[in-house]
Amino acid sequence: MKKMVEYNAPKRDYDFLLNEVLDAIPIVQNLGYSEFDKEFLSMLTEGWAEHVKEVWLPINQLGDREGLKFNNGEIKMPEEFKIAYKESVDAGWLSTSCKTEHGGMGVPIFFQTVIWAEFGTSANMALSVLPALSVGVYEVLAEHGEKELVDYFATNMASGKWSGTMCLTEPHAGTDLGMITTKAVPQEDGTYLVTGTKIFITYGEHDMTENIVHLVLAKTPDAPEGTRGISLFLVPKYMPSEWKSEGLSGVSEELNTQHNGVTCSGSEEKMGVHASPTCVMNFEQSRGWRVGDLYNGMPLMFEMMNRERLATGMMGIGLAEIAYQNALSWSKERRQGRDINGMQEPNEVADNILVHPDVRRMLLEAKVNNEGCRALAAWTGILLDQSHSNDKEEAEMATALVALFTPIVKAHFTDLGCETASTCMQVMGGAGYCTEYGVEQFYRDVRISKIWEGTNGIQALDLAGRKVTENLGKNLRHLLWPMTDFINENKNIPEMSEFNKPLHQGVRGLQQLTLLMIAEGQANPHFLAAGATDYCRYFGNVLLAYMWAKMAKVSLTKKGEPFYDAKIASARFFFKKIFPETVGLAAKVQAGHKSLMDYPVEMM
Amino acid sequence: MKKMVEYNAPKRDYDFLLNEVLDAIPIVQNLGYSEFDKEFLSMLTEGWAEHVKEVWLPINQLGDREGLKFNNGEIKMPEEFKIAYKESVDAGWLSTSCKTEHGGMGVPIFFQTVIWAEFGTSANMALSVLPALSVGVYEVLAEHGEKELVDYFATNMASGKWSGTMCLTEPHAGTDLGMITTKAVPQEDGTYLVTGTKIFITYGEHDMTENIVHLVLAKTPDAPEGTRGISLFLVPKYMPSEWKSEGLSGVSEELNTQHNGVTCSGSEEKMGVHASPTCVMNFEQSRGWRVGDLYNGMPLMFEMMNRERLATGMMGIGLAEIAYQNALSWSKERRQGRDINGMQEPNEVADNILVHPDVRRMLLEAKVNNEGCRALAAWTGILLDQSHSNDKEEAEMATALVALFTPIVKAHFTDLGCETASTCMQVMGGAGYCTEYGVEQFYRDVRISKIWEGTNGIQALDLAGRKVTENLGKNLRHLLWPMTDFINENKNIPEMSEFNKPLHQGVRGLQQLTLLMIAEGQANPHFLAAGATDYCRYFGNVLLAYMWAKMAKVSLTKKGEPFYDAKIASARFFFKKIFPETVGLAAKVQAGHKSLMDYPVEMM
Repeated sequence: MKKMVEYNAPKRDYDFLLNEVLDAIPIVQNLGYSEFDKEFLSMLTEGWAEHVKEVWLPINQLGDREGLKFNNGEIKMPEEFKIAYKESVDAGWLSTSCKTEHGGMGVPIFFQTVIWAEFGTSANMALSVLPALSVGVYEVLAEHGEKELVDYFATNMASGKWSGTMCLTEPHAGTDLGMITTKAVPQEDGTYLVTGTKIFITYGEHDMTENIVHLVLAKTPDAPEGTRGISLFLVPKYMPSEWKSEGLSGVSEELNTQHNGVTCSGSEEKMGVHASPTCVMNFEQSRGWRVGDLYNGMPLMFEMMNRERLATGMMGIGLAEIAYQNALSWSKERRQGRDINGMQEPNEVADNILVHPDVRRMLLEAKVNNEGCRALAAWTGILLDQSHSNDKEEAEMATALVALFTPIVKAHFTDLGCETASTCMQVMGGAGYCTEYGVEQFYRDVRISKIWEGTNGIQALDLAGRKVTENLGKNLRHLLWPMTDFINENKNIPEMSEFNKPLHQGVRGLQQLTLLMIAEGQANPHFLAAGATDYCRYFGNVLLAYMWAKMAKVSLTKKGEPFYDAKIASARFFFKKIFPETVGLAAKVQAGHKSLMDYPVEMM
Repeated sequence: MKKMVEYNAPKRDYDFLLNEVLDAIPIVQNLGYSEFDKEFLSMLTEGWAEHVKEVWLPINQLGDREGLKFNNGEIKMPEEFKIAYKESVDAGWLSTSCKTEHGGMGVPIFFQTVIWAEFGTSANMALSVLPALSVGVYEVLAEHGEKELVDYFATNMASGKWSGTMCLTEPHAGTDLGMITTKAVPQEDGTYLVTGTKIFITYGEHDMTENIVHLVLAKTPDAPEGTRGISLFLVPKYMPSEWKSEGLSGVSEELNTQHNGVTCSGSEEKMGVHASPTCVMNFEQSRGWRVGDLYNGMPLMFEMMNRERLATGMMGIGLAEIAYQNALSWSKERRQGRDINGMQEPNEVADNILVHPDVRRMLLEAKVNNEGCRALAAWTGILLDQSHSNDKEEAEMATALVALFTPIVKAHFTDLGCETASTCMQVMGGAGYCTEYGVEQFYRDVRISKIWEGTNGIQALDLAGRKVTENLGKNLRHLLWPMTDFINENKNIPEMSEFNKPLHQGVRGLQQLTLLMIAEGQANPHFLAAGATDYCRYFGNVLLAYMWAKMAKVSLTKKGEPFYDAKIASARFFFKKIFPETVGLAAKVQAGHKSLMDYPVEMM
């Protein structure tokens, strides 16, 4: 029963979420996207779904098998990847959210952040990373770069002609960036010479674009110690050939064929994403420009990082979705055993495996978590747009919620993504473990998402130690207000009670756990840090519960139509078979830190 | 910070378990192993630990990278594997549990089943599978084969000179073996001609041994339908050259160089265990002998299968242990950030990452689950020996517990093994995902263990639907008696209460859940099947809780010695930070089957 990898982008689901659950169109029209309507959104979604299915998906397995070739400082990508990338650039698909004045499509941010990201990573995660990084670099430049940097570099990033990277990690400094030693020495003409070694640089070197624009964290000679002394620099692989210290204005796009002291000295062999280069980058007196203020590197990098954290969270959904679709499709054709309650198809040699409760459990865990995460992602995407609103209250609310949701989207979606890929492999038994069925690649590829852009442990600490408490708990209040309203509104609606009651319990539990974390954490920060991961998962489940209750609410008004009946059934499955894990998580948070911190570490 | 993969077999842990917690020596001496004493056990354990470290471990990464070569029906293993295998055969390490009259070492079964299996899979899972299968085939033959089969084949399996396979699965028949179509046609001389195709045959073809002995499930021409019509056949790759229908007695070991109609038509490309061949085997009028009675194939295959299920469970521990050791070793050298309660080493650029509660949580989850599983494995191993006791009561008790524990060892240990390998990768961040650090191989390799020998979903059904209920619940009673005694004995011992109380709750919960499963399951078998996986994990946790309480009990008498203090701390961690997941699992079982079985399956 050999099969090609299948993929159909969940367009109907986004239609439901954006138009029926979240009312995205009036919100973004109100933000100034006056011509962005339902039809245009639908056209974009359809177009991108078709593009990734036809251009990206067919080369995904090839990318995994062939990978990239590192030779003498150069990385050669598979020829098919270069062709696909160019096709996407030419069709304008890599710059949907970039501003029109920079050559982008200028549509609301949520399209790129959510729909683009999910479909792209499903179809070809390794390829999707390149434009995702470029857009991140573009946004930092467009927001904070001097005009000449924007004009010269950002526009070329917007189109996808050039690509970008984030250069943070050094061999001894990953999570702890305060220790970086890369130096940036100011020159008389206002530029800097950057010297140092960076590791784990995604697409640090490749031959898909003419130039590569690195955003590099470095320290100037007299910088303060630690993260307070870090600044951000733009360092291109190739300098403009006409550049001569007088700035970039009027300089042509022709590039100096001698690289700018930027070399790649190695590429990591990894478990997955074989067609996404992971480079050791050496900067040797490399010419660069400072982006933003001196010593303001960390906040700028965090702007980009937060964007990439959401993008990484979407990889969790993207890979889980394609794994689910292929496991489901396999299940539909597989016959083994009989329904334990009595055979269903006596004329067949065996019943279809979907009659088995445990097979359904696995597939529904996958489906329901995917759809719940997708709903939260869609909401987060719209909030990202709203965070730029001119209405101060709207912007404040949206900024608070995006801050709160970012670590959860990153950590919970990627945890679930890895679990779901595993569950889908399990559905397929031995076939799932074999290369030809494709799911094992998703299992390997998605695993990096728990590590990228700050490990999930770091996300949990960011949530529990910062996002929940900052500004006296304002972020959390912006969530609890609408959730409490929703719960109260539905209290007396009988058919909502199976969803509303457990949601209510979950929200109450979240409030209690949060108070516990804050109170105990003040006395002993180890308490907070020891419970952070379980707290983050608890929180993620409560958000998904809220999403499922909202989806059920909408769907109950349209009962009888199969799509909505399935949503109600999914909500039911969520509350019965997924949400109960919160009880155990709460107990683990409450169990505190002593059993960890009193452990005789020399005996580990 | 590049490192070689490290491994030190947990010899001290087995010493503690076997001699201090489980009193293995008097038990097996009483079973007839009168010369098997503590010193001999220690010598065996040391010897095997050294052998795998020196001979198996150094080629494990090579096996992963080079894998095997399939060409024209033949599989060539890496030369280094052939040398290592021969070295192990020569040293007698592959036949410790085989009977002395067959050339084996004749030591108690638990050594091979537990210690041999754990160390072997840690060091080189792909290689370990070959002798593990051979021993399984040996045991079925030694127990049920006609004398001439034992004399001719079993003795060569015992030494490791020849190897064995289990040929069950066919393309359309995996979990559901009733559908197999492989035929065995009886011949006048008492042999059979076997024809059919089997898939997923581990080590079905290779060049490590001169001959390969296949145990093949097949149906005779007039066999009843379904599993009731299955018989078991021994089919060698090569027939004895002197064989001429008059039986095997006196026939030399020289082999006919024409294979016996047994060909390998393909080898699966897999995510891991690259040096363990997974073959498509074709039997074409292949000469074979029936093993055991006609139509009695399934019970015999289950004997071997149960053995391999325990072996597969041990892979969960084995890979989790080596992943843990390497993550820990990496952690000890890695410095990032500062203790959130205040810096620990001001003279260093950062504190060691073991100061961070979340890093400790990850490593302790790994360590404590590994040690808990190891304790249950050791007990199960001794019970295997006891199941052969001449004392009827002892044999009955042991047989009941082995039946009960087998699905739990298989499912819970391999679930935890996969989770632990992932957790250990996470501790190492980006390095964990890179090939050179070794842990990503463990992550890939261990994943098959959830699928092999019956998926974990099948194990859970076996536990909930068969092992718990068979013989009117006798198996469970044999467990509840000693657990209840233990709980009562420790009720009034204050320093045991932190372990004894949650154990007591867990046991009570298990009893309630079991009654619920049986009562509801009688009314609707879907209820039982829908809750089986969560029930199995609940049960696994209760068994580990019992093990940890027993280990704590012993260790409390030796407080002040670091080894025992660490055991007490581990027990505490287990009850505080792992065991609480049972609360959520119970809620999921109680949530029943309706949300699964009422789901509109066409909308999945």
